[in-house]
Amino acid sequence: MSTSNERYESALKSYKEHRGKDYAPARLSSEPENIDEFKDLYFMRCYGDTWSRPGLDMRTRSLMTMCILAAIGADEQLKGHIESAHNVGITKAEMVEWLIHLNSYLGTPKSMIAFNIARQVWKEMETQKSSAP
Amino acid sequence: MSTSNERYESALKSYKEHRGKDYAPARLSSEPENIDEFKDLYFMRCYGDTWSRPGLDMRTRSLMTMCILAAIGADEQLKGHIESAHNVGITKAEMVEWLIHLNSYLGTPKSMIAFNIARQVWKEMETQKSSAP
Amino acid sequence: MSTSNERYESALKSYKEHRGKDYAPARLSSEPENIDEFKDLYFMRCYGDTWSRPGLDMRTRSLMTMCILAAIGADEQLKGHIESAHNVGITKAEMVEWLIHLNSYLGTPKSMIAFNIARQVWKEMETQKSSAP
Amino acid sequence: MSTSNERYESALKSYKEHRGKDYAPARLSSEPENIDEFKDLYFMRCYGDTWSRPGLDMRTRSLMTMCILAAIGADEQLKGHIESAHNVGITKAEMVEWLIHLNSYLGTPKSMIAFNIARQVWKEMETQKSSAP
Amino acid sequence: MSTSNERYESALKSYKEHRGKDYAPARLSSEPENIDEFKDLYFMRCYGDTWSRPGLDMRTRSLMTMCILAAIGADEQLKGHIESAHNVGITKAEMVEWLIHLNSYLGTPKSMIAFNIARQVWKEMETQKSSAP
Amino acid sequence: MSTSNERYESALKSYKEHRGKDYAPARLSSEPENIDEFKDLYFMRCYGDTWSRPGLDMRTRSLMTMCILAAIGADEQLKGHIESAHNVGITKAEMVEWLIHLNSYLGTPKSMIAFNIARQVWKEMETQKSSAP
Repeated sequence: MSTSNERYESALKSYKEHRGKDYAPARLSSEPENIDEFKDLYFMRCYGDTWSRPGLDMRTRSLMTMCILAAIGADEQLKGHIESAHNVGITKAEMVEWLIHLNSYLGTPKSMIAFNIARQVWKEMETQKSSAP
Repeated sequence: MSTSNERYESALKSYKEHRGKDYAPARLSSEPENIDEFKDLYFMRCYGDTWSRPGLDMRTRSLMTMCILAAIGADEQLKGHIESAHNVGITKAEMVEWLIHLNSYLGTPKSMIAFNIARQVWKEMETQKSSAP
Repeated sequence: MSTSNERYESALKSYKEHRGKDYAPARLSSEPENIDEFKDLYFMRCYGDTWSRPGLDMRTRSLMTMCILAAIGADEQLKGHIESAHNVGITKAEMVEWLIHLNSYLGTPKSMIAFNIARQVWKEMETQKSSAP
Repeated sequence: MSTSNERYESALKSYKEHRGKDYAPARLSSEPENIDEFKDLYFMRCYGDTWSRPGLDMRTRSLMTMCILAAIGADEQLKGHIESAHNVGITKAEMVEWLIHLNSYLGTPKSMIAFNIARQVWKEMETQKSSAP
Repeated sequence: MSTSNERYESALKSYKEHRGKDYAPARLSSEPENIDEFKDLYFMRCYGDTWSRPGLDMRTRSLMTMCILAAIGADEQLKGHIESAHNVGITKAEMVEWLIHLNSYLGTPKSMIAFNIARQVWKEMETQKSSAP
Repeated sequence: MSTSNERYESALKSYKEHRGKDYAPARLSSEPENIDEFKDLYFMRCYGDTWSRPGLDMRTRSLMTMCILAAIGADEQLKGHIESAHNVGITKAEMVEWLIHLNSYLGTPKSMIAFNIARQVWKEMETQKSSAP
């Protein structure tokens, strides 16, 4: 059975693989002290207990999460997950497949919200690439 | 039985009648090629297969759509449909009836989100009118 | 300005026109006394303050409500409103238009739930008709 | 810092206080072996990490949970939580206040679904009482 | 039985206690005349018929409302209610309890949306305090 | 470009592969004639335009759809899709991974609704197997 430390290490590793950057929470002076308990909790629930499990690969988990976020209207979170999807090997063409799937199962408005967010990510990716040295 | 071409023509005509402008999709350089398949699909599903059907008039379809968009929290889409509602003869006074109906069936918060969007459209309409030559 | 009594009379009248029967609340012995305040409140909010307003006709309000109920997954309420829709002149063929509209704007699963409920209502209507003397 | 065992003990205690009975999961022969990981996870997330925290009392958590369950349409779970609410001191009259609050913030249909579930619980409670020796 | 005037007075009083300021609706020139009927209706439904009822205290109603607003994705309304929560005695530490409760019952994305809104409120509160004479 | 006939053939083939049986719609005597247009539309949208596309494999589409159906509360549809998941190679152990993912992203109540539906499917599968000759 894994210790808390092992679970935390595993969460950090999964986060980095999925998000393409290190996990770096920070507490603002305006935030109460016990907010760290909330932050640890959601980080461990998502990355320690879910993404780090070997039972489903990251590509599949990524598309599953994108479906859920589009369904519940979590726009900012969806933006982060579309960015991360590119880190785990999902192509733009596959994202179009995902948008078509959303259209059939969630209807046109929800699929257009997802499309607008994807378009924004794609635009930012292009800008970053063209501004690279 | 209608051909694909006839359906597309009919979709363009319904779109113009409802939206008050021509349908003009454009592909950004950052978008993948197969995105056009998604765009054609949602355009044809909404305007070719739904709005162009004679079984319900545009005024009724417009109010029905506004109810759905308010219910699912598709704010940007709702803004477009409130603008279009004025094109198919729905008055501001009737929109207040719609807001009261939303309040009873979706509760106060959702009806206030819809109201804030309507208010924004009304303000923009006034600005455009007053800036007309 | 209308008195409370006038509003209640107007609510009863709208209810009967829409639902095709008299409003008849009853308090079970297991229900607390103040439950009547809740029942009065939702009845007056819906029928006294909303359906009895002349600004939109009953047919339009009926389709609007059916859209909201399908969107939020209020199945039992949707069943009652599909039954009532027939009282205010909405035909089965028009309900198919509503189902197609739902499919485009809410996606296939929500439209199929609505269809299954409509099908159940239609079946019960046929049974009642065939068993009439 | 609490050990896993302490957290589990605390979860069992909170569950019993809230639900009024011991936690007793059981694995059917048709269920896969790893299902126990899912069951442990949701039990610990809810009762080990949430209900057992002293920061909010059980009465408040109970009403908060009932609001969420009514909002997301989790009918069966809502039924269990309405039953449990009586264990932590929420009266029927207070539940009517909750229903009125739901009506204003979620609209009439969602509040009626909650009311129908409460009514069912109240009826079952009456039956149990009258059949007691 | 209370008259309309008494109910309105009671609504104004509850609003001020909860929101910490006077209720001050205003009609823009772009808004139709009957919009006042909508505004009166939602104000009276929320503050005249709900918050002013003695059956549940303001602190409990505040947390209940925050749960509903987080569940249905009414972000702007949630911001106002988090601000108001501080007026009725809910501490930042208790809000963290609320966020943890949301995480367990609504999942991580919805709890993070609520957290981001709370963080924004906390930041604004700090800025206001530090800029006070 | 594919003709309508080719699309329909392709839809029938995808349906059979996913659902493990032939598509067999039937019109009840109580259903209006134009209901066939609705049935063709949702069948073609899902199986002709979505599942039959090669861009994502059936296993991935299956898990994506199950996430959406759990999120929007389409219980009956979810039951059908869990049954079909077994046809496209998703194991029970993988479904537990899906349930854990749902718990983190949709919260405990929605994940328990999905679990109860999965459990029902598993039970029925066991019964069928044990009653086979």
